Amino acid sequence: MKTYDIAVIPGDGIGKEVVPVSLKVLDTIAEIHGGLKFNYTEFPWSCDYYLEHGKMMPEDGIQTLSNFNGIFLGAIGNPNVVADHISLWGLLIKIRRSFEQSINIRPAKYFKGLRSPLVNPNDFDLIVVRENSEGEYSEVGGRIHKGEDEIAIQNAVFTKKGTERAMKYAFELALQRRGHVTSATKSNGIFHSMPFWDDVFNETKQKYSDVQTSSYHIDALAAFFVTRPEIFDVIVASNLFGDILTDIGGAIMGSIGIAPAANINLNGKYPSMFEPVHGSAPDIYGQGIANPIGQIWTAKMMLDHFREAELGKKLLDVVEDVTNDGFKTPDIGGKMSTIEVADEICSRLQKTYSLS
Amino acid sequence: MKTYDIAVIPGDGIGKEVVPVSLKVLDTIAEIHGGLKFNYTEFPWSCDYYLEHGKMMPEDGIQTLSNFNGIFLGAIGNPNVVADHISLWGLLIKIRRSFEQSINIRPAKYFKGLRSPLVNPNDFDLIVVRENSEGEYSEVGGRIHKGEDEIAIQNAVFTKKGTERAMKYAFELALQRRGHVTSATKSNGIFHSMPFWDDVFNETKQKYSDVQTSSYHIDALAAFFVTRPEIFDVIVASNLFGDILTDIGGAIMGSIGIAPAANINLNGKYPSMFEPVHGSAPDIYGQGIANPIGQIWTAKMMLDHFREAELGKKLLDVVEDVTNDGFKTPDIGGKMSTIEVADEICSRLQKTYSLS
Ligand SMILES: CC(C)[C@H](C(=O)O)[C@@H](O)C(=O)O
Ligand SMILES: CC(C)[C@H](C(=O)O)[C@@H](O)C(=O)O
Repeated sequence: MKTYDIAVIPGDGIGKEVVPVSLKVLDTIAEIHGGLKFNYTEFPWSCDYYLEHGKMMPEDGIQTLSNFNGIFLGAIGNPNVVADHISLWGLLIKIRRSFEQSINIRPAKYFKGLRSPLVNPNDFDLIVVRENSEGEYSEVGGRIHKGEDEIAIQNAVFTKKGTERAMKYAFELALQRRGHVTSATKSNGIFHSMPFWDDVFNETKQKYSDVQTSSYHIDALAAFFVTRPEIFDVIVASNLFGDILTDIGGAIMGSIGIAPAANINLNGKYPSMFEPVHGSAPDIYGQGIANPIGQIWTAKMMLDHFREAELGKKLLDVVEDVTNDGFKTPDIGGKMSTIEVADEICSRLQKTYSLS
Repeated sequence: MKTYDIAVIPGDGIGKEVVPVSLKVLDTIAEIHGGLKFNYTEFPWSCDYYLEHGKMMPEDGIQTLSNFNGIFLGAIGNPNVVADHISLWGLLIKIRRSFEQSINIRPAKYFKGLRSPLVNPNDFDLIVVRENSEGEYSEVGGRIHKGEDEIAIQNAVFTKKGTERAMKYAFELALQRRGHVTSATKSNGIFHSMPFWDDVFNETKQKYSDVQTSSYHIDALAAFFVTRPEIFDVIVASNLFGDILTDIGGAIMGSIGIAPAANINLNGKYPSMFEPVHGSAPDIYGQGIANPIGQIWTAKMMLDHFREAELGKKLLDVVEDVTNDGFKTPDIGGKMSTIEVADEICSRLQKTYSLS
C-alpha cells in the first residue's frame, strides 16, 4: 500500500467549499487504484485563525508541515478582515519560501465543455513555468519620508541560481511535450533584471539544441494569450509575469475557477504544495456554488507529482467529460452546486474505472 | 491661423510606413478646419541612426525637441540590430523622462468594423492612465558577481508625487466620463511598493466623493480585460501594469495595431509625445501592409491635446466608418495596404466635412 500523508489547509472563503469535495475525489481515486491511500490532517490556518491568534499559523507551523508528503491548499485571503499582504505572506508565500518551492507549474488548455470567451480558442495547450521564490516578490525594500515626500522602494531580486533553475525546468518539460519554450521578458523597459533574465535564457537554450525557443515582452505575450494562445507550448516566466499570464490562462479557458497549480520543491527536502490559481472569492462564499474543478485539477497535479500520472490523466478525462455533459457551476454557465459537480465526478470515476 | 510645430520621428520598421500617411491625414484635417496648420520637422533618429552614429539621437536631441509643440513618434526598436533596452532607453524612454511626460493615456474601446477575438466584446470603452515616469521602469539597480553567483537587482521606485499625480489625473478624467476609477494593484504579492500604491489610492479617493472606485490585483484585472472589459471606465496603473493592460486592450479591440497613446507633460514646460502602443514590427516592415489606424488614432489624441477635441472626434468617427466599410489591412482581416486605408480616410474626411 502506497500511503501519502497530506496536510490539508482549506484556508479562506471558497477554499472551505472546494477542498472537502476534492478530498472525496482523491479518496475515490485511491479506492479505484486499490494500492493507494491518502491520510489527511487538516489545519484551520486562515484569516479567521488570524483574528483569533494574531497570526496566520502557529510558530511551529512550518515545522509541523515539514513532516508531510504534500500540502493541499484551498485559498488564502479575506481582505475585509486582514490585509492581503499580511495573510498571504503569513501563510501562502511563507510556505512557498520555507519549503523552497522554487517552481510553480500552471497548465492552461482548451477544456472540453467549457465556453471560452475567445471566438477561436483553437485547441491551445500550454503550461507556464513560473519562478516561485524570488524576482518581483521580494521582501527587500521599504519606505522613507512621510506625507508629500514619501517614497516606496521595491527591490526585485533575480539570482542566477533561481532564474536558471526555472529555465532548466521549462526546457526539460518542453522535451516531454512539443519541444518549444517561450521566455516572458520585458527587457526593453525593465532595465537591469530583464536583460539579466534574457542572458540566462540565451545561455540555457545553448544546452538544449532540440528545443525551439522564442522570447516575447510580457505586454505582447499577454496579448498573444488572447489572440493566439495555440502558438505556445512551455512558457517560462518570472514570479509576477507568471502570475499575470496564468490568470489570463484561466480566463481564456473559460473560468479562472478551473485553473490548477503546483508549487514544486525540486530538491526533495520538503513537501510540495498544491493550490489552485483562483483566490478565496469572498463574494460567492457560502452559497455552495464555487467551481470545484480548479481544486480537483490541482489534486490531479498532486497525483502527477506522486508519479501517478496515469491516474491523474484518468481523473482529468472524467472531469472534462462531466463538464462536457453539462455538470457545471454557474461561473461556467451551469446551474449545479459544488457538491453536485464533485459527486458526479466521483460516481463517473467509479463507473468508468472500477471494473477496468 | 493656429500653427503647431511638430517634431516627427518615424523611427524604426513600420513607424516609417504609418507616420507619413498619418501626416497626410493631419493635413487633411487642417485643410478642412481652415484656420489650423501643422509644420513638420522630421528627425531620422532610429536604430539605423544608431548604427551610423553610435547613439539613438544627437547629444543635443532633447534640446532640439524642446522647441516643438508636440512630438509625433512612430515606433522604436529593431532587436536584430540594437538591443531593445539600448534603443528604447536611448530615445523613447529618454524623451518621456526628459520632458516629464508623467502620464501615458491609452484608450481601448469596442471599435466599429473590427472583429474582436472575444465572443462578447460588449461595447467596452475604457481608458488606462499609466504612470509614465517611474515605478518598475527605473534605472536604479545593477548586477553583482559573475557566473553561478550572479545576481541582478532591480529597484522599482514609487514616489508619493508621481503616484498621486497619476491617481489625480485618473479621477479628474473619470469625472468627465462615467465616474469610475479602478486601481491596478498587486499588494498581495509585491510587498512594499503596491501597499504604498494602495495607500495613495485610498487617500486620493477621499477627495473625490463623486467617483466610484474599485481595486483589483493585476492578475485578476488582466483576466477581467478578457472576460468583462465592459465593467471598466478609467483604470489607473503603474508603468509596467499599464503597459501590460494596454496591450491586452489592443488585443480585445481586434488588433494591437490600432491602439493609440499619448505621453502627456502635465506642467506645460515641455512638449508631449504621441506614439501608438504597437512596436516597429520588423516582421512585416517593407510590405506596405502595416495598419495605420494606431498612428492615426494617436494623431487624434494629439488633436485632443491641442484642444481640438471636436476635430478629433470627427476623425475617429471617419476612421471607424472606413473600417466598418471594409477598408482594412490584413491584421484585421482586410486586403488593403497602409496607403489605401489612409487615402480612404483622407478622401472620406474631405467628402464628409469639407462642406459642413
Ligand atoms: C517599448 C517599451 C519600452 C514600451 C513600454 O513598455 O513603455 C512600449 O511597450 C510601450 O508600451 O510604449
Ligand atoms: C495571492 C497571491 C500572492 C498569489 C500570487 O500572486 O502568487 C496568487 O495570485 C497566485 O497566483 O498564487
